Amino acid sequence: MARVVVQVMPKSEILDPQGQAIVGALGRLGHPGITSVRQGKRFELEVDDTVDDDELQQIAESLLANTVIEDWVVVREDQS
Amino acid sequence: MARVVVQVMPKSEILDPQGQAIVGALGRLGHPGITSVRQGKRFELEVDDTVDDDELQQIAESLLANTVIEDWVVVREDQS
Repeated sequence: MARVVVQVMPKSEILDPQGQAIVGALGRLGHPGITSVRQGKRFELEVDDTVDDDELQQIAESLLANTVIEDWVVVREDQS
Repeated sequence: MARVVVQVMPKSEILDPQGQAIVGALGRLGHPGITSVRQGKRFELEVDDTVDDDELQQIAESLLANTVIEDWVVVREDQS
């Protein structure tokens, strides 16, 4: 069994209205030091030893991220 | 300026129907090796040097996470 994290974020050239709304709210609430926020997704997967890195990339690309507007990173956290 | 990441995940004792739906879909799509998925949020913040760790914790706790059902982690990524 291994713990795998998949991080999915909007591509840098894509507008992120959720993030912009958060920056605006933080400014109004007394936190002007936060100059940019981007909001994405984080998936924590438990995978068994039959799953190799190729399969994880395929899962992230085809099922967890929308590759038109999102970038993704697969990180294996530990092996136990 | 610094890059800060805030990870927000459903608490372990809270059901995560989104994650369960993803596990079910992965099984049907030929990926039975994925035994658990939990879906959370990832925020990438650009903060200036006036923002200290206490302010970041307060922002994460009061604005980015719903502390009734979610845990959060603040990670400073780099300093430039």
